[in-house]
Amino acid sequence: MSDDAKINRRKFIVDGSAAVVGAAAAGAAASSEARRQASRKTARAEGFTSPSGCVIPYSRDELLRAERSRTFTGRQLGEIAFPLGGIGTGTVSLGGRGDFRDWEIFNRPNKGHSLPFTFVALWARRANDTPLVRVVEAPLQPPFRGAQGYPREGAQGLPRFRGAAFRGAYPFAEIAFEDETLPVAVALEAFNPMIPLEVDDSSLPVAILRYRVSNRSKAPIDVALAFSILNAVGYDGHTALGGNRHAGFGQNITRLRRDGPIVGLELTSQKYEVDDVRVGSMALVTTHPDVSARPAWEEGAWWDSFQKWFDEYAAGGGFHDGDSAGPSEDGVSQYATLAPRLALPAGETKTIDFLLAWHFPVRENYWNREPEVRGRKLRNDYGTRFENAWDVARRVASDLDRLERGTRAFRQALEQGTLPAAVLDAVSSQMSIIRTNTCMLLEGKRFFAFEGTNDEGGCCPMNCTHVWNYEQALAHLYPSLERSMRRTDFVDNLRPDGSMAFRTLVPTGRALWKFKPAADGQMGCVLKLYREWQMSGDEAFLRELWPQAKRALEYAWVQWDADRDGVMEGEQHNTYDIEFYGPNTMMGTLYLGALAAGERMARAAGDEASAAGYRRVFDSGRQRLDAELWRDGYYMQRVPDPAGVKVQQVEQKEAWYAAAVDRGAIKYQYGEGCLSDQLLGQWLATVVNIGHVLPAEHVRETLRSIYTHNFRHDFFDHPNTQRLYALNDEKGLVLCSWPRGRRPALPFVYSDEVWTGIEYQVAAHLIYEGLALEGLAITKAVRDRYDGERRNPWNEVECGSHYARALASWSLLTALSGYSYSAPERRLSFSPRLTPEAFSAFFTTGQGWGTFSQTTQPTAATARVEMLWGALELKAFGFEPGSAPAGGRLWAGVNGAAVVAHADEAGMVVFDEIVRLKVGDRLEVKLTRGSM
Amino acid sequence: MSDDAKINRRKFIVDGSAAVVGAAAAGAAASSEARRQASRKTARAEGFTSPSGCVIPYSRDELLRAERSRTFTGRQLGEIAFPLGGIGTGTVSLGGRGDFRDWEIFNRPNKGHSLPFTFVALWARRANDTPLVRVVEAPLQPPFRGAQGYPREGAQGLPRFRGAAFRGAYPFAEIAFEDETLPVAVALEAFNPMIPLEVDDSSLPVAILRYRVSNRSKAPIDVALAFSILNAVGYDGHTALGGNRHAGFGQNITRLRRDGPIVGLELTSQKYEVDDVRVGSMALVTTHPDVSARPAWEEGAWWDSFQKWFDEYAAGGGFHDGDSAGPSEDGVSQYATLAPRLALPAGETKTIDFLLAWHFPVRENYWNREPEVRGRKLRNDYGTRFENAWDVARRVASDLDRLERGTRAFRQALEQGTLPAAVLDAVSSQMSIIRTNTCMLLEGKRFFAFEGTNDEGGCCPMNCTHVWNYEQALAHLYPSLERSMRRTDFVDNLRPDGSMAFRTLVPTGRALWKFKPAADGQMGCVLKLYREWQMSGDEAFLRELWPQAKRALEYAWVQWDADRDGVMEGEQHNTYDIEFYGPNTMMGTLYLGALAAGERMARAAGDEASAAGYRRVFDSGRQRLDAELWRDGYYMQRVPDPAGVKVQQVEQKEAWYAAAVDRGAIKYQYGEGCLSDQLLGQWLATVVNIGHVLPAEHVRETLRSIYTHNFRHDFFDHPNTQRLYALNDEKGLVLCSWPRGRRPALPFVYSDEVWTGIEYQVAAHLIYEGLALEGLAITKAVRDRYDGERRNPWNEVECGSHYARALASWSLLTALSGYSYSAPERRLSFSPRLTPEAFSAFFTTGQGWGTFSQTTQPTAATARVEMLWGALELKAFGFEPGSAPAGGRLWAGVNGAAVVAHADEAGMVVFDEIVRLKVGDRLEVKLTRGSM
Repeated sequence: MSDDAKINRRKFIVDGSAAVVGAAAAGAAASSEARRQASRKTARAEGFTSPSGCVIPYSRDELLRAERSRTFTGRQLGEIAFPLGGIGTGTVSLGGRGDFRDWEIFNRPNKGHSLPFTFVALWARRANDTPLVRVVEAPLQPPFRGAQGYPREGAQGLPRFRGAAFRGAYPFAEIAFEDETLPVAVALEAFNPMIPLEVDDSSLPVAILRYRVSNRSKAPIDVALAFSILNAVGYDGHTALGGNRHAGFGQNITRLRRDGPIVGLELTSQKYEVDDVRVGSMALVTTHPDVSARPAWEEGAWWDSFQKWFDEYAAGGGFHDGDSAGPSEDGVSQYATLAPRLALPAGETKTIDFLLAWHFPVRENYWNREPEVRGRKLRNDYGTRFENAWDVARRVASDLDRLERGTRAFRQALEQGTLPAAVLDAVSSQMSIIRTNTCMLLEGKRFFAFEGTNDEGGCCPMNCTHVWNYEQALAHLYPSLERSMRRTDFVDNLRPDGSMAFRTLVPTGRALWKFKPAADGQMGCVLKLYREWQMSGDEAFLRELWPQAKRALEYAWVQWDADRDGVMEGEQHNTYDIEFYGPNTMMGTLYLGALAAGERMARAAGDEASAAGYRRVFDSGRQRLDAELWRDGYYMQRVPDPAGVKVQQVEQKEAWYAAAVDRGAIKYQYGEGCLSDQLLGQWLATVVNIGHVLPAEHVRETLRSIYTHNFRHDFFDHPNTQRLYALNDEKGLVLCSWPRGRRPALPFVYSDEVWTGIEYQVAAHLIYEGLALEGLAITKAVRDRYDGERRNPWNEVECGSHYARALASWSLLTALSGYSYSAPERRLSFSPRLTPEAFSAFFTTGQGWGTFSQTTQPTAATARVEMLWGALELKAFGFEPGSAPAGGRLWAGVNGAAVVAHADEAGMVVFDEIVRLKVGDRLEVKLTRGSM
Repeated sequence: MSDDAKINRRKFIVDGSAAVVGAAAAGAAASSEARRQASRKTARAEGFTSPSGCVIPYSRDELLRAERSRTFTGRQLGEIAFPLGGIGTGTVSLGGRGDFRDWEIFNRPNKGHSLPFTFVALWARRANDTPLVRVVEAPLQPPFRGAQGYPREGAQGLPRFRGAAFRGAYPFAEIAFEDETLPVAVALEAFNPMIPLEVDDSSLPVAILRYRVSNRSKAPIDVALAFSILNAVGYDGHTALGGNRHAGFGQNITRLRRDGPIVGLELTSQKYEVDDVRVGSMALVTTHPDVSARPAWEEGAWWDSFQKWFDEYAAGGGFHDGDSAGPSEDGVSQYATLAPRLALPAGETKTIDFLLAWHFPVRENYWNREPEVRGRKLRNDYGTRFENAWDVARRVASDLDRLERGTRAFRQALEQGTLPAAVLDAVSSQMSIIRTNTCMLLEGKRFFAFEGTNDEGGCCPMNCTHVWNYEQALAHLYPSLERSMRRTDFVDNLRPDGSMAFRTLVPTGRALWKFKPAADGQMGCVLKLYREWQMSGDEAFLRELWPQAKRALEYAWVQWDADRDGVMEGEQHNTYDIEFYGPNTMMGTLYLGALAAGERMARAAGDEASAAGYRRVFDSGRQRLDAELWRDGYYMQRVPDPAGVKVQQVEQKEAWYAAAVDRGAIKYQYGEGCLSDQLLGQWLATVVNIGHVLPAEHVRETLRSIYTHNFRHDFFDHPNTQRLYALNDEKGLVLCSWPRGRRPALPFVYSDEVWTGIEYQVAAHLIYEGLALEGLAITKAVRDRYDGERRNPWNEVECGSHYARALASWSLLTALSGYSYSAPERRLSFSPRLTPEAFSAFFTTGQGWGTFSQTTQPTAATARVEMLWGALELKAFGFEPGSAPAGGRLWAGVNGAAVVAHADEAGMVVFDEIVRLKVGDRLEVKLTRGSM
């Protein structure tokens, strides 16, 4: 409701003063200084004090370096599992060593398990030399545990490359396999198509694996690449397989098929009916025409099967077998091998593409106890689009060029921006969550999601409103799916009294989850509805959901803010799985944000009376929260006397439920603590362009306090009886601290923990508020903890793997670029928080995506929008040219042709006619000094 | 049957020539050279060529250095689990970081699991300082896996020491906890009493944990050490516990008791009847008088319990609670804490002893399918000696000085010898197998053993004759238990036809295991019976078992050597879990050894006819094996035509059973391969002092071939489809190789594997035969693979953890010292294979143990036997003084008093009257030049 953003913009353009306040400007200076230093010496881990007076435990170079992706080697390969798969398809992960692990294509998580004898092995023979066989993987790393020796079921006993260097630039992974003793080099690039806005193109059940083989000798070499795989159709998707026996196997058939440009193995089973949860198929194909294959390895006692496979391959680099195997006996399946081969002249490099496709169309609800939904079958959207895995492989192969171009355009647009390394890494690595088993895409493009995944099952079903409050990536990359979540929130989960079931039972429409409503989740949903409307400009969508959203918002007056003073005092269940009592700004800012969003939506819906009412409550709440809770640099919680507290009893207790009043004290509050989430609603209001809901100067000082008190430079002396996400010499932001003492005996149950989603939320907020260096420090701390050796860089963990809250990292991008978009108003603007003199970043809208860049010279400032996908209509455009000259001339043009525009009083560039940009179009706006 | 040993001895003493042949002498020279070099530069990993022409991939210094135990730090702490427990009691392991892990006190293995919240935490307060709490453990090491964060159930979230240095000198472990930021230092010494020959003293269900706390500040410090523990009575011993809930818990009671000099927690449960497999108790006591305690942590939701525990301890270093907790609800137990406290003046060090005792007297047979034994209850011997865990703690505490003195005397005697580091390490670390869950000691002191242990159950029951062929440690440390195994072999397991069930069903007497007999195991048992007789001098034992042993030996003529030519041609099931066909020296030397032992035992039993018969078959076999199988440096297997092979069908197939004839070829043979085990029977014959059963020069050349062909300096290029025990840059001895080519398509199923038991067998044999450097290189390779980071130094793995075959390492000690003992003949002699000029080593006999040492100077040679335990009666004594003068004078004495002796024609020192040595006695023999 505040007009801060506009005021700031006007000020910048009119005054021509520094566009970026405080530390962001310092960051720019630091950046060039750091680059100078970097040329003199390699990076040292040294701290410094930021312009805002905060201690930054990194060097400026470490914070600001422009590395586009990290390279992992040696021990850092151990934890890497890079997920390959689309939205709602499940994934198989590429391990850091080049192995395939965590086969999560069977509609559930499956951490730590692999399909036995599923691996790729190179065969190479230089004229007159003995042929060599090398598994295309890096060496195994200690420890070498196992009561029967180190596991052998992944061909661990075969020779392999001496090392590997892994680079992951999601959705692309690259591995360079290293072995100087060999005459051939191998590199792998792996990806799954991902094109923002294009749901179908981004929801393909396939892994694309491109092996590049180079002959670095001076003689021709014959080469083969044998991809072996277990026909796993019938697997339950979570038990550990020790071989090709499993109760679900049987009637498995593996066939070698040629089909136009593809050839490969079709892996099926006749055991299951069409609606069975195990029904499905797999396909392993290549576009390389010359292959040999073995639809089934020979059988035998002991290790005969693998030994014979090895001997046959080692001898000739190929296989001699029939074209089909099976159907297998019950309980048994086949291992099969597809082995493309080629001749490699001296010094040449050739490429072999594999497509690994799968098709397991049926899920069932294994995660709920409620009888209305337990065991119900659910159909994956992709299952309605493809007949089987072969169909997937065939169609993806024929469309591969287009899919790959779009995916590369996206990644390149992300990379070409001026994002610091840790931000690019945080933004792009965590997008992957959308495409893991945390999420599902059911028929009709309905998007559902757990909070995260346990090792063998989803964790905390489904569409949890308060966890998904933090998420921003889906909203900006696939806004249609985000709108599907809002429909679920408001159409399916709203009860007659206006309270919202904050988890969803799927299939929907059968029952609602029985638990008290979550204050944070419910208010957040109102804010998020506003965001979806702004992103899409879909007025029909707004009209459809606004009546329910109004009820959801006004339920606050029933449950939480009975006196309608704009401050929640009632029992506020929230994302910490406990209840807060009394005024606090975590709920309070979400409530204020919802009121502000509600005002705007009510007005758009023509309901001026409600709009005015929300405004009155907002104004009251804003004043009262600030007056009552602001103390010494941050906002505290005012915990009421336990006698006056009313605890809602719940019909259905969860394992984690604990009544808040115990032995005369209210447990699980934070009181005078400095809570990292205390400005959660302010952050969300800023992300959705509502502006300040609390006084700007207090917001900024509070963020500085959060950084100062809660960002720990190590955890050696941090006693934590709760869960552990940061240890030893790691850095991280704790959820709460008590700098003034008076820590409650039993504060809220996650208070000493470190959650990446909250770290990103706070980091982005710091950046939004001009404390960019502090935000970068927190971001780097997160990503340093996920270094491949300690944890998997593509799996940030909280209450489960691939935890949705980490999708808050997208707001680092919107914060750094000061991105603001309103489809209804056809307005787009940027306000870079770092290096405004030369800034560039990726952006999306509901209809298209591209890059924004701005440069500033002494006499001119230029902004440029290049559309790389979709379309964009603009009436107004804004940017903040930093030190660009003021009072100069304005020129605007599309693809070089001028368009008529003027600057309005708020500093926005307003076009006389709507500018309609399509793919490839370039909008430019130049400000020059008057004399030019 | 050969008299090599005597001939050699005579030659040495009479000629005065170098006592040690070949490489051993070179080793001595190398040793001094290495020591000189070591003073100039630190060790480098460099290879050299041994005097026998073998490539040694280590420097001489690396091989010969005298380090008494390795120190592990950092990552090397990760895999360490040092077992604390007695024979047949189970163990709890001390982790490398100071944690307690692998709680295997519940009568089964339990790898990787810990008891929740069972840890030790230091509290310290310097006057006016804030108290500090530190878990007495080193930091956690990556990876930090866990879908809910890193596990917290071991207090991982509390501050701890910054580092630790672990030294394990079995049965003692020491950890120095390092943290320069603290005013106090802590060290831990842990052990379980182990005194050779003393079965009861070595079979105590207790871990003794001695914490030394030092005040390194200049002010007094108040200190407490809180040992927290879960009352785990009722635990099934193998499922992963996530807290204090488990179906087996309930009616748990924890009491604080004072009982004379001990005070502590008694942990019991009333839930189980006296014969229940879960019945039992635990006790955690200290001899420190000043303690506080909490018999049960407070309960609460979420993490309340642990948080309250921490807050109480952090505030005051103690606990205020009642003296008793429980009985608990069904399915729940208590955490409890015992916290001794003391005042530590500036600069002082004080010690706190904890005794952790347990008493779980009942096992049940969970490992067999056979209905006659499955589910049968078995009673641990220790259960018959103690009433409960408190009784154990009380009695051990009162006897601790004596137990500790004996244990230290043993360890010191082992350490004070001149064994190279890797040998001392191999010998002493692997003794621990006897005291793990691989073995059990049932009532009546009956010793039974698996081959090893899987993670949650024993592996390959029970008393497998062929695996236990390799074992030498039990035979030399606890010969009475080894005799119990021979009774099981010959009394319980011999079938009417003379074939032996090579596994034992316990309880015995109900059924025999149904499978074809093992040729190697059955012949080995005859050799081992001879060993037990020689060790013990127990003529009644020999008389009792000889008739059965005779039948077992002569069964060879039914099954394996029907033509009685001394060569086995029939189907020879063996330790590779397959059958060999046709002549081979692996079975052949065991057979010859058994015939030689049989001859001696038959003669002792007065059966001269049988003795002569065995001698005839032996002479034939020795000649034929050598003539038929010796080719180009080693002995091959002569594989018969498959048409002529008779395969015994078995009534009861095991999972690993595979008929040997398939598609017209005999699978799983080695043919012309160079088998590491090809002289297995020769090694065993040498260990038991029977001498050469094949020509000495061929034995030595064969060992050289095994080293050359089978000892790999790395495994980068070693394709292995079998199980994996050595990887990457590790070194190790493969079971077989085919240096002449002609590797069978499917050789025996373990041929490409690396087994520590066979490595020790070959290494010891190399040492016996004068190739000491080669033997040391193999030994070092094994121990380098078990470096704490790759694998646990106290758990060598083959088909299971703590694998019995590794007990072959004891023969490194007998080989290096050239130990030979015959109780019936009252004869003891030594013939050092390394540094004979200054050699010292531990030795045992059936009645006592001590140290042997010899020194050689230009004019004199001295040998000394010091008795440290038990007694020893000698008629004859021999030693080989290396370069000592020949033809000189002989002086012998006990404790300085001369005894009358002369040298016999074999060079032995023969006493006119039996010399009777008891503890503390010293026998000395000096040879001086004639002029003196």
